[in-house]
Amino acid sequence: MNQIRSNRSPLPREAEFLPRGNWPDFPPGLVWLVGAGPGDPGLMTLHGLNALRRADHVVYDALANPAILEWCSPGTKLEFAGKRGGRPSPEQRSITFRLIELAKSGARVLRLKGGDPFTFARGGEEAIMLTRAGVPVRITPGITAGIGGLAYAGIPLTHRDVNHSVTLVTGHDTDGAGANAVDWKALSRGSQVIVLYMASRWFRSIAEIFLASGRDPNEPVAVVSQATTPNQAVLETKLYRAADDMDESGIKPPSIICVGRNVPIRHAIEWLPHSENAPEADLPAAASATEIARLAR
Amino acid sequence: MNQIRSNRSPLPREAEFLPRGNWPDFPPGLVWLVGAGPGDPGLMTLHGLNALRRADHVVYDALANPAILEWCSPGTKLEFAGKRGGRPSPEQRSITFRLIELAKSGARVLRLKGGDPFTFARGGEEAIMLTRAGVPVRITPGITAGIGGLAYAGIPLTHRDVNHSVTLVTGHDTDGAGANAVDWKALSRGSQVIVLYMASRWFRSIAEIFLASGRDPNEPVAVVSQATTPNQAVLETKLYRAADDMDESGIKPPSIICVGRNVPIRHAIEWLPHSENAPEADLPAAASATEIARLAR
Repeated sequence: MNQIRSNRSPLPREAEFLPRGNWPDFPPGLVWLVGAGPGDPGLMTLHGLNALRRADHVVYDALANPAILEWCSPGTKLEFAGKRGGRPSPEQRSITFRLIELAKSGARVLRLKGGDPFTFARGGEEAIMLTRAGVPVRITPGITAGIGGLAYAGIPLTHRDVNHSVTLVTGHDTDGAGANAVDWKALSRGSQVIVLYMASRWFRSIAEIFLASGRDPNEPVAVVSQATTPNQAVLETKLYRAADDMDESGIKPPSIICVGRNVPIRHAIEWLPHSENAPEADLPAAASATEIARLAR
Repeated sequence: MNQIRSNRSPLPREAEFLPRGNWPDFPPGLVWLVGAGPGDPGLMTLHGLNALRRADHVVYDALANPAILEWCSPGTKLEFAGKRGGRPSPEQRSITFRLIELAKSGARVLRLKGGDPFTFARGGEEAIMLTRAGVPVRITPGITAGIGGLAYAGIPLTHRDVNHSVTLVTGHDTDGAGANAVDWKALSRGSQVIVLYMASRWFRSIAEIFLASGRDPNEPVAVVSQATTPNQAVLETKLYRAADDMDESGIKPPSIICVGRNVPIRHAIEWLPHSENAPEADLPAAASATEIARLAR
């Protein structure tokens, strides 16, 4: 389906990277569905690292930081199965058939997705199809960009002076068209803070609906691009001019858009970035990370 | 403020538990605010583990699994500062003053919270007060129970046949009274799937508003108690009878309540629990975990 290559990481398979504990086994024939988080490799979970160390074959999406793949054991097969730039992505069904094929052949198959596999990431569809094919599944959640990405921009998802509720919503449906399944007007009226995934392209019309539904034109908006990576960029604006500002700034997807009065709280917090002493690009080693990125392109 | 004890874990401080990388430093005087996830220690992030290994002093909430504290270095001071059972909790302000005091004394202070520090957890308030006191902060998000807890019950937060949006909402405001700040009627109309935190006590009246707002009485509801721990319990019911079923079943908080058509998807997925081969209570070692729990009670 895609290029397959072997991990050439010099880390021995036996290397112990987990604190003491009776960690779950990874039996042959299992598909372990793991969320890698939004980009910073340090946001990977310990279960995720355990799965990476034990996998025979990793089928991964366009991860924000492919340096994570360096943590696999030597000889692990790495297979890219996601969208990257303008390249066509494999059909969802063909990815799942590939997972089934690998599992049936007796491989320990790690399906690694950016963010959280169950948050706008089709993890449910994959798990259902695997179950129908008789392939056992283990599921490990990941940090989703709509929460962790905002945190890296200093924005609390909730703050008791601002909101007791928050709505996460995807800006386009899974066919790439406008999200006609969402009642944007009702959502706008019922949601104190709104966090939009994959919405850059549609945000002008979404913002118009929000304004027509009575939201404050001066309501704060933040656009966090490439959240938690060394290339993270934040655009802070107001609802009435957010679409114009996004166009003018040239801020690029992938991005998370947050509409709400929680945004300005970032100015009341002076937080150290995780990358201050450790640029994420250097995790685990700059040269090999670059190599991985080049290979995966 | 509370009992302070020293970690007696035999793990040497130098033990290497992280894959190669240039991990962030933990300078004296810093407060590192970390989300420990919903309970399963394997859902801790690598940044969180790094912070645990380097901290001098850990101020922790009522964690679903105190076994996580075993991963600290020897001599690390452990200080409990959360609610547990009927015990009164320290005032939020007094916790923050304690963090400031410790940081100003030159300690590396880890503030460990269950779930995600920015999702209904007052992390923003703590970070603002620390900033005002001139104490630098680093923030590491965690897996929130409303996403990760549902995943451990086999429930995808989103599924493209069901929802393109999801609302997370807390069932009581931070003073413990009903969440009058939330427009439950508008929320009900605008939200395809609703995930409620800390809502058991108020769910009867919330469900009545949902029904009066036109939601299907037979809409599926799941209550996931002690999510991702060995004591996880799931109650599956319908909206019109959910409050009665919760009373009759005796299912106990802390719990996450999910209202939506994504709930029954769990029957289409056969997933292996993480605890199958490794009961979470055994992470890292049953005896010492029990000891920690007893000490922290």
